[in-house]
Amino acid sequence: MSDQNPLFIPGPTNIPDRLRAAMNVQTRDHRAPDFVETFAPVLADTKKVFATTEGTVITFPASGTGGWEAAVCNTLSPGDKVLVARYGMFSHRWIDLCQRHGLDVQIIECDWGSGAPADKFEAALSADKTREIKAVLVTHNETATGVKSDIAAVRAAMNAASHPAMLFVDCVSSLASMEFQMDAWGVDIAVSGSQKGFMLATGMAILGVSPKALEAMKTAKLHRTFFDFRDMLATNASGGFPYTPPLQLIYGMRESLKMLFEEGLENVYARHFRLAEGVRRAVDAWGLSLVAQSPDLYSDTVSAVYVPEGFDSNALTEQAFNAYGVSFGIGLGEMNGKAFRIGHLGSLTDVMVLSGLATIEMAMADLDYPIELGSGVAAAQEYLRKHRAALIKTAA
Amino acid sequence: MSDQNPLFIPGPTNIPDRLRAAMNVQTRDHRAPDFVETFAPVLADTKKVFATTEGTVITFPASGTGGWEAAVCNTLSPGDKVLVARYGMFSHRWIDLCQRHGLDVQIIECDWGSGAPADKFEAALSADKTREIKAVLVTHNETATGVKSDIAAVRAAMNAASHPAMLFVDCVSSLASMEFQMDAWGVDIAVSGSQKGFMLATGMAILGVSPKALEAMKTAKLHRTFFDFRDMLATNASGGFPYTPPLQLIYGMRESLKMLFEEGLENVYARHFRLAEGVRRAVDAWGLSLVAQSPDLYSDTVSAVYVPEGFDSNALTEQAFNAYGVSFGIGLGEMNGKAFRIGHLGSLTDVMVLSGLATIEMAMADLDYPIELGSGVAAAQEYLRKHRAALIKTAA
Amino acid sequence: MSDQNPLFIPGPTNIPDRLRAAMNVQTRDHRAPDFVETFAPVLADTKKVFATTEGTVITFPASGTGGWEAAVCNTLSPGDKVLVARYGMFSHRWIDLCQRHGLDVQIIECDWGSGAPADKFEAALSADKTREIKAVLVTHNETATGVKSDIAAVRAAMNAASHPAMLFVDCVSSLASMEFQMDAWGVDIAVSGSQKGFMLATGMAILGVSPKALEAMKTAKLHRTFFDFRDMLATNASGGFPYTPPLQLIYGMRESLKMLFEEGLENVYARHFRLAEGVRRAVDAWGLSLVAQSPDLYSDTVSAVYVPEGFDSNALTEQAFNAYGVSFGIGLGEMNGKAFRIGHLGSLTDVMVLSGLATIEMAMADLDYPIELGSGVAAAQEYLRKHRAALIKTAA
Amino acid sequence: MSDQNPLFIPGPTNIPDRLRAAMNVQTRDHRAPDFVETFAPVLADTKKVFATTEGTVITFPASGTGGWEAAVCNTLSPGDKVLVARYGMFSHRWIDLCQRHGLDVQIIECDWGSGAPADKFEAALSADKTREIKAVLVTHNETATGVKSDIAAVRAAMNAASHPAMLFVDCVSSLASMEFQMDAWGVDIAVSGSQKGFMLATGMAILGVSPKALEAMKTAKLHRTFFDFRDMLATNASGGFPYTPPLQLIYGMRESLKMLFEEGLENVYARHFRLAEGVRRAVDAWGLSLVAQSPDLYSDTVSAVYVPEGFDSNALTEQAFNAYGVSFGIGLGEMNGKAFRIGHLGSLTDVMVLSGLATIEMAMADLDYPIELGSGVAAAQEYLRKHRAALIKTAA
Repeated sequence: MSDQNPLFIPGPTNIPDRLRAAMNVQTRDHRAPDFVETFAPVLADTKKVFATTEGTVITFPASGTGGWEAAVCNTLSPGDKVLVARYGMFSHRWIDLCQRHGLDVQIIECDWGSGAPADKFEAALSADKTREIKAVLVTHNETATGVKSDIAAVRAAMNAASHPAMLFVDCVSSLASMEFQMDAWGVDIAVSGSQKGFMLATGMAILGVSPKALEAMKTAKLHRTFFDFRDMLATNASGGFPYTPPLQLIYGMRESLKMLFEEGLENVYARHFRLAEGVRRAVDAWGLSLVAQSPDLYSDTVSAVYVPEGFDSNALTEQAFNAYGVSFGIGLGEMNGKAFRIGHLGSLTDVMVLSGLATIEMAMADLDYPIELGSGVAAAQEYLRKHRAALIKTAA
Repeated sequence: MSDQNPLFIPGPTNIPDRLRAAMNVQTRDHRAPDFVETFAPVLADTKKVFATTEGTVITFPASGTGGWEAAVCNTLSPGDKVLVARYGMFSHRWIDLCQRHGLDVQIIECDWGSGAPADKFEAALSADKTREIKAVLVTHNETATGVKSDIAAVRAAMNAASHPAMLFVDCVSSLASMEFQMDAWGVDIAVSGSQKGFMLATGMAILGVSPKALEAMKTAKLHRTFFDFRDMLATNASGGFPYTPPLQLIYGMRESLKMLFEEGLENVYARHFRLAEGVRRAVDAWGLSLVAQSPDLYSDTVSAVYVPEGFDSNALTEQAFNAYGVSFGIGLGEMNGKAFRIGHLGSLTDVMVLSGLATIEMAMADLDYPIELGSGVAAAQEYLRKHRAALIKTAA
Repeated sequence: MSDQNPLFIPGPTNIPDRLRAAMNVQTRDHRAPDFVETFAPVLADTKKVFATTEGTVITFPASGTGGWEAAVCNTLSPGDKVLVARYGMFSHRWIDLCQRHGLDVQIIECDWGSGAPADKFEAALSADKTREIKAVLVTHNETATGVKSDIAAVRAAMNAASHPAMLFVDCVSSLASMEFQMDAWGVDIAVSGSQKGFMLATGMAILGVSPKALEAMKTAKLHRTFFDFRDMLATNASGGFPYTPPLQLIYGMRESLKMLFEEGLENVYARHFRLAEGVRRAVDAWGLSLVAQSPDLYSDTVSAVYVPEGFDSNALTEQAFNAYGVSFGIGLGEMNGKAFRIGHLGSLTDVMVLSGLATIEMAMADLDYPIELGSGVAAAQEYLRKHRAALIKTAA
Repeated sequence: MSDQNPLFIPGPTNIPDRLRAAMNVQTRDHRAPDFVETFAPVLADTKKVFATTEGTVITFPASGTGGWEAAVCNTLSPGDKVLVARYGMFSHRWIDLCQRHGLDVQIIECDWGSGAPADKFEAALSADKTREIKAVLVTHNETATGVKSDIAAVRAAMNAASHPAMLFVDCVSSLASMEFQMDAWGVDIAVSGSQKGFMLATGMAILGVSPKALEAMKTAKLHRTFFDFRDMLATNASGGFPYTPPLQLIYGMRESLKMLFEEGLENVYARHFRLAEGVRRAVDAWGLSLVAQSPDLYSDTVSAVYVPEGFDSNALTEQAFNAYGVSFGIGLGEMNGKAFRIGHLGSLTDVMVLSGLATIEMAMADLDYPIELGSGVAAAQEYLRKHRAALIKTAA
């Protein structure tokens, strides 16, 4: 309603001015040298964000869902088995996608609020004597529950089972905000998008692909053209694109990478932890609980917060929007009505976080929640000011 | 190189300031009323551009290639037969896509420079006694050759053969620039994109879908999730999207439609004809020939021009770019080296067209083409000023 | 430092996106009809904001200081006497300007924190038997102290003294934010600027001029050319400008007026009161005092707040800026070191105000101020939510 | 009308995207370090454009007219004598300004189309035995007639007369487009603006001031406050401003300087000469004449062109605007109706120049001018392509 207020949905994020300016370019000829000289370094630099030297970065003009589809279609064949744990709306949707593409999905059902069950993965993989499981699919940051899973542990489980399956990770809402180690964690395909940690508009799926996944590509039989890695690899090599590229987003990506590297990825991660911790202190001060079941699972990009018994979280987010013009994330799937979500990712500052906390406090008070106005803000202020960090400079 | 010069590639087009401003919006909550109230009218208004009242408009955050894939995957099953004529790079690519998705493609090979062969379609359909052909695929405006095909004639041919196949039309580079009559021509799926007649950034595939195609959707077995019409229809109905929508493009689309309706679609088409005719007069004055074989095939959005024997069209477009900072379309596929292309679509003015003609004349002179400087410009000036039209107002 | 954080200086204000877009226009021909058709209505509509039907609006490409100079130079002659009260930095500067232009300035010295002394004005005017005082100069909103003066009372005092002097009012930081009644208050020249209530970039002085002031113009002998009303009146009449106009600001002004009228001037004033009252509740909760001496003097666009004895207000604003990237106003003149200022004008929301309060609380805590974190925020939240108003829509 | 077409008024110029983006910044605190660190280098770098090491750069939020006023008011006293030649509208207006500020203006009347008469200046100065003339005022580039004067010759004349008068030069429409040598030419005050060679929006007067002029400042008695050098010098020294600065323009100026230095000032001048020469070839091909009386007087930023006997230049510029949406400069003052002007300054390309020539040719043909369509374009094409230069890169 008002472009003046920040929003607190867990992506797309508030876009800093530098990136709005970077995306606001006139059409340029994508077959001309200027584009070529822009695009190739963007792909190369994005590898640093995935923390991969072996992998290849591939982008599509699509959303994260398109990235999931690309991962699956380029490496698997109809009837292939994949192993997935369901612990939130986004893991659920990836399962659904696999099923609709004719894959045999072995599902491990988990509580929403829990993370990727490394032990159960190990058991399932060990039981898979005939090595029918071709890939393990994991949601790194389950945006619906505010849960961050331990990908290194999943990799360790796969190794413990000596299983050759590929590891596909959805890092849509974690990449460029929380630590991600594609090579170190042995990730074969990592799927992300432009509108979260990269702070851009929606419209670009961004994948990191390992040599092993590229090998699987050669025999994969699922149909694909728009999402075909092969066309991308063939044209990207010379700075081209198999069809019209999302030029404005690529120029935006160039500036986004510049901003991330200026701040330093480690500092970006530390900032997200710090701001998230401020939010968590507020939640605690309100006497409310996170959906994430334990501190090791706390996401630094989104906090899903249970409302007290007898309250409807949808009424709360509506009140925040209608009365104060501020958007928070609603509870998704089985969390609908039970939890609301505070997105705290992207180009965010202490000041913005505090404004979100102050707003939701007012909305809670309006709806007679048993919370004290200012209490969450005070707890966050106390934490944030005692753990001050160098300010990021988001303006050019 | 310089954002000051217009470009003459056949899309993406020069983006008018109004649309750059419209797309340059801060992130808004796509689950909030503001987006819903924006998106629904955009879909409804886009129907007017397709000239359909019966059809449904569906958009994806993708390029035109994604639109082709969506058309096919949502209505057909593996092994289904489709009938296509190949007469340029874009009809070729759609054929390739169909083959990669496991369809049985019956191809009618035509000369590049010719259009959709209604007579051959009729013969093929009449010969298809068992009605195995499920769809006829036609490229309305073949961007590689500057050829506009007669879709009404194709429809007449299908009717003459009393064949029940669906008619799918690629109108990526024609919609919103040249007349398109989805209902009148009996088109079942029309595929377009944001970056041509809509004058926006690349990133949105835009489809018009007939009730018959929606019926076919119910039994189609090709895999799809990202491009699934069903998810779109289910969420669009209430102003939503099955995943994160390309918000900035949708706001851009709202303003684009406003501009198109302010000018009037008939006037938009007339303007494109007039500017294209100016270009054609210049080509004639240079003593050069169009790739399009006859006037009824001339495209009003792009002219492909043969260079004289012994000249290399790639050297010409490189000279225009390197010496004058202006992009023209290169010759694609079998036209590579033989023809260059002048895009003349979108928010274009007489003044811009003349600057393009003046530029390519200089580049031709630089490369010792047998043309007289100023001759094409003069021919275009003469035509344009004698067929003056009301100026469009592109500024808000 | 970060364009993400709002700022809380008492102007220039945070510029809403709509106005940034409106000012971001390409150069247009200021002698062409499009500009003429834009400029004339802007002048006419601005009269509504001054609440004048008799007056004329004149703008200059300058700051508010230029507006003061224009007021004086166009109506007075060297040696003319003017009556002014000094009660802050901006009244002081206007006095200084008058003196430098050779006027005889009769100064009434007042405490900083007080407002225009109507009674003393009346006494001085009554004592001026020979009617040498040509104009009374009043600062409506003293930005240095957060004091709003009662212009109607000044007019009443002038009337009580039956004195024919003109009344000049500096409403730079009040117009379009707080009620202003040019005709009803008998104001002869009202001076404002683009960067406060109009929410635009700095660069346009905006004056309302009464018929009486225009009459005085005819005999005024102070030198002026750039600021000459006569050139403006002569060219503005036909939509022109005597020199190159600040085109981008004029397009911005058109949109600013649209926003103000969409919200409704009464609602704009009510919103500023409400937000200011929220700030005042916070100040009270901190146990601090405003510089403004009594509630009737409280400004709704800026609050100047005394820091406790022994603290340096400059250290506080520096801490807010260096640690949190948020700008507040420093103490000016004799308030330097003693008070800081919270600007709360323009396109501001509850959420933004709360973020400012939360930030300054952290800075105060960092410097060991005896305040409780969250206390000011809570007091403001309580007030703001209990006096909720319809949200303004700042996005187009 | 259409923001797509370039304009050919002699300033404000077409603004390149980089500068529009640079000016489109959110409000920042002008008392904070970020602004200080931006503003000081801008002032220092602008000295390079004036080619002065001894001088000081001072800017005001005003137009060029304000710059003229600042020059005069800061260095002269009422009744002081200045020597000026009148040979166009802008020299005329500066004379008028001086007279309105109570100066004694000794005017040398010259034909419009001629330049500054060094010989007559020498005679007048030699005749001024009592050294009453305090300043010689010269318009470097008379925008009304397209005449560039020889400032070095004026300085030589002053030296030949051994006269101590200051030399003030209006370089509004020449600085940053044509060579200017403040130190070498002994210029005491050079007056320019943001909207010409700096390619920015209107709103900043930019002055170069010599030590001698600063000395004169100390005793100057003309009234000034807004335009007072002293306040500027006192605050600029520490990166400040005496009142609210035109922040957006200063950020724009930073980027403008960057662009100018990237291209290289010598290359900027060469480009303007080359483009101007292209225009002059076209004028010659049309059989028309420039107002400028001889080649040494030809301006490289604007060409004033006589229309043939019996034609009305206003009808021509109106036709270009109404029929084709392109603005050219009208004839000013005694040139009104007799000549039109083609502005060719700022961020201009060959392509843009040719589009302007093609447009005015059409308008001339529409009005039955005895010119051949394409003839001017062809002459310009021939010159431009034979004198090709490296392309400037205006995009970031």
